[in-house]
Amino acid sequence: MEPAVEFSHDPVTIPTLLLLSLLEAGPVDLLVRGGTVVTVDPQMRVLEGGSVAVRGGVIEAVLASGEPLPEAREALDARGHLVIPGLVNAHGHAPMVLFRGIADDLPLMEWLNGVIFPAEAKHVDREFVYWGTLLACVEMARSGTTTFADMYYFEEEVARAVDRAGLRGVLGQTIIGFPAPDYKTTEAALAGAEGFLRQYRDHPRVVPSVAPHALYTTSLEVVRQAHALARRYRAPFQIHAAESQEEDRVVRAKLGQTAVPALDGAGVLGPGTILHHGITLTDDDIRRLGLRGAGVSHNPGSNMKGAAGLARVPEMLAAGISVGLGTDGAASNNNLDLFEEMDIAARVHKLFRQDPTVMPAREVFRMATLGGARVLGMGDRIGSIEVGKQADLVLVDLHQPELTPLYEPYSHLVYAIKGGHVRTVLVAGRVVVKDRKMTTLDAEEVMARANLIRGQIRK
Amino acid sequence: MEPAVEFSHDPVTIPTLLLLSLLEAGPVDLLVRGGTVVTVDPQMRVLEGGSVAVRGGVIEAVLASGEPLPEAREALDARGHLVIPGLVNAHGHAPMVLFRGIADDLPLMEWLNGVIFPAEAKHVDREFVYWGTLLACVEMARSGTTTFADMYYFEEEVARAVDRAGLRGVLGQTIIGFPAPDYKTTEAALAGAEGFLRQYRDHPRVVPSVAPHALYTTSLEVVRQAHALARRYRAPFQIHAAESQEEDRVVRAKLGQTAVPALDGAGVLGPGTILHHGITLTDDDIRRLGLRGAGVSHNPGSNMKGAAGLARVPEMLAAGISVGLGTDGAASNNNLDLFEEMDIAARVHKLFRQDPTVMPAREVFRMATLGGARVLGMGDRIGSIEVGKQADLVLVDLHQPELTPLYEPYSHLVYAIKGGHVRTVLVAGRVVVKDRKMTTLDAEEVMARANLIRGQIRK
Repeated sequence: MEPAVEFSHDPVTIPTLLLLSLLEAGPVDLLVRGGTVVTVDPQMRVLEGGSVAVRGGVIEAVLASGEPLPEAREALDARGHLVIPGLVNAHGHAPMVLFRGIADDLPLMEWLNGVIFPAEAKHVDREFVYWGTLLACVEMARSGTTTFADMYYFEEEVARAVDRAGLRGVLGQTIIGFPAPDYKTTEAALAGAEGFLRQYRDHPRVVPSVAPHALYTTSLEVVRQAHALARRYRAPFQIHAAESQEEDRVVRAKLGQTAVPALDGAGVLGPGTILHHGITLTDDDIRRLGLRGAGVSHNPGSNMKGAAGLARVPEMLAAGISVGLGTDGAASNNNLDLFEEMDIAARVHKLFRQDPTVMPAREVFRMATLGGARVLGMGDRIGSIEVGKQADLVLVDLHQPELTPLYEPYSHLVYAIKGGHVRTVLVAGRVVVKDRKMTTLDAEEVMARANLIRGQIRK
Repeated sequence: MEPAVEFSHDPVTIPTLLLLSLLEAGPVDLLVRGGTVVTVDPQMRVLEGGSVAVRGGVIEAVLASGEPLPEAREALDARGHLVIPGLVNAHGHAPMVLFRGIADDLPLMEWLNGVIFPAEAKHVDREFVYWGTLLACVEMARSGTTTFADMYYFEEEVARAVDRAGLRGVLGQTIIGFPAPDYKTTEAALAGAEGFLRQYRDHPRVVPSVAPHALYTTSLEVVRQAHALARRYRAPFQIHAAESQEEDRVVRAKLGQTAVPALDGAGVLGPGTILHHGITLTDDDIRRLGLRGAGVSHNPGSNMKGAAGLARVPEMLAAGISVGLGTDGAASNNNLDLFEEMDIAARVHKLFRQDPTVMPAREVFRMATLGGARVLGMGDRIGSIEVGKQADLVLVDLHQPELTPLYEPYSHLVYAIKGGHVRTVLVAGRVVVKDRKMTTLDAEEVMARANLIRGQIRK
């Protein structure tokens, strides 16, 4: 066991990285050349005809049109493309792609208790989790997501799949207050989670995490233990919270208060804590989260479909809370396309506020990139195209009838571009999607396995 | 001038078509074979391994798996695909794709009066309308829309483009109470509209229509004249109505009542009348529309983005009103993908009603097909895959990671499938999109022209 320290994933600081790259000589590894670079840097610069130089998986230079280009071992022609930071999916349950569409249009608790929990009890095993996650990785990578947060069972299988796919994940082992597909008791789950934290603590792309399910399924004491475990390993701590009025009722009946004050009383709100959904937050909840430094994932597509409500994102942002955008699992969404999620987010808040100026495209795009990175405690490594950050880059093909003409990149990114327009994806400088094809694994094999599992579920 | 008759576009009735096809001998023209056929017939049948036989542009047979297949001159392998009726976009302004993203996230009237109307006054001419419509046709066809309703200026150029693209359109010549890009007076616009009605009255795929813009821009007297003209030619009559509370205020100040009672008082509500948006409808408005037989287009994506409000679709459907789904123009949406629109529609009503059972996927898919067809007065010709109807068919490629596995076609169609999954599109039995490529025109040329026009606008 390690002493508790402040929350940080990144033992190598940016100045160190810069120094290292400056000491290195010779051509850069890769030059992404001549695209419209949407940086999401502090000035929110958009560089037409810009280029990005990569060395050792890290962004070494971000160059405007006309600046001299470094020599490069390899070049990627980005003309006619937007070059954007890899999107960050701040909440999901990757393997649940295998349940996509198994039941829809049902009341939330009926859907969860009547369909999903029983289906999970019956069908979720290591194979399910591994192949399901690979399938989700293909979908996410091909729609521009390079990093995602996850909560599921057998999370080491999620990690194995993420490693193989070449993506980044903040992967939370679930702790839940009833016998789960992987662990039959919370003690076993906590011990399993600790093993998982040890196993992946030094992985370059997998950040292991601890994820008690929610206060309506798991006792506050177990949640506290899970948080203590996460702190010992400097690991992100994830929990569903304030997800519906029904949850509020159940939690209040159980604990005499709703999720945020209960979690705050247990001392688990703070940097490194991620609350998923945060729909029913009160003014006081929002103030607390802002003070404590916990982040929130916003999942409008899933929340709308489940009629759970709409999180008060403008108030959260005003309170200084980091907010990321998430798809939630494919069984409740039913897709993992963050472009779709941006589109929905930008629209639905305007409708709810009766104000077309709230959640403008630029702000929503920032939420799906740097916002998510900050929620996951990775704002210093990913989420924008800046020198010293990981080279997680997505090339979006603008040469499409439905994206012609282009006046304003943010408008297109949020209201017109869909995951299907993504052509090339890099994670840490490595091409994982090339011309819409996954390079790190055989997508056909993954789909075939998914169909086999579906066959078993249908029986 | 012709005598007023009841509203109908279809001089050839279905029994006649059936009789003609039964009299013909020999192989059918085309067999779409072995797909999952989503019929939208009265039983809402879904036929796995089903086939559709086409002769003379008309559906001659819809065959379940195992039924004997007719001989065919040509076959289209639909295995691994959904075969759905061509989608019907019940409202839009096709040429406005050229303004896509020119201004967003602004108050509605500021956007309209400060950006769009001035831009139109300056840039909209025949070229703009023709090339813009071609571009919109490419986008719509490639995302599964085979029929769309339109309201714009120089509508004969819209018609020329629709004819060339091979799609179907209900194309409304705009009448507006100020000097427009095409006609400087309403008298000239009405005369022009009549010329347009005469020119296209017998076109197999273009249904000419009369489209006064709205009661806040056009006098009630001119609206009445426009309606009389439409009636004389048995043409559909389209108008924006009940689009925002701001409109309600303006119209009430002008006429002492809001749009629906005003239009009803003028005698223009009835079969063949299409109200676009219908957001602020009262209970009494809904009752009137149900009684009169007017249809409504529902445009949730545009309405959300503009913060205009949410139409009370469940009440409209309960009142027996035909409701179709529309994208509105690309300047206010900013895409013409009806799959996206279905997704948004299904979600947003659940959120608003706090009820995940409203607007189930099946009902939303019906709205985007047969619902729209009925709104446009074409329910007897298009909108479903049934014997005697036009062979407007769309093949959706299911062999995609993000559509694997499949449990329930309607769930996928509404919540997971996007326009980019459309592979092949037929209108009246003719292939207009093959393997995502437009067959009827050169999309590259259209995009190049669009970019030239953008260059002029940017200046």
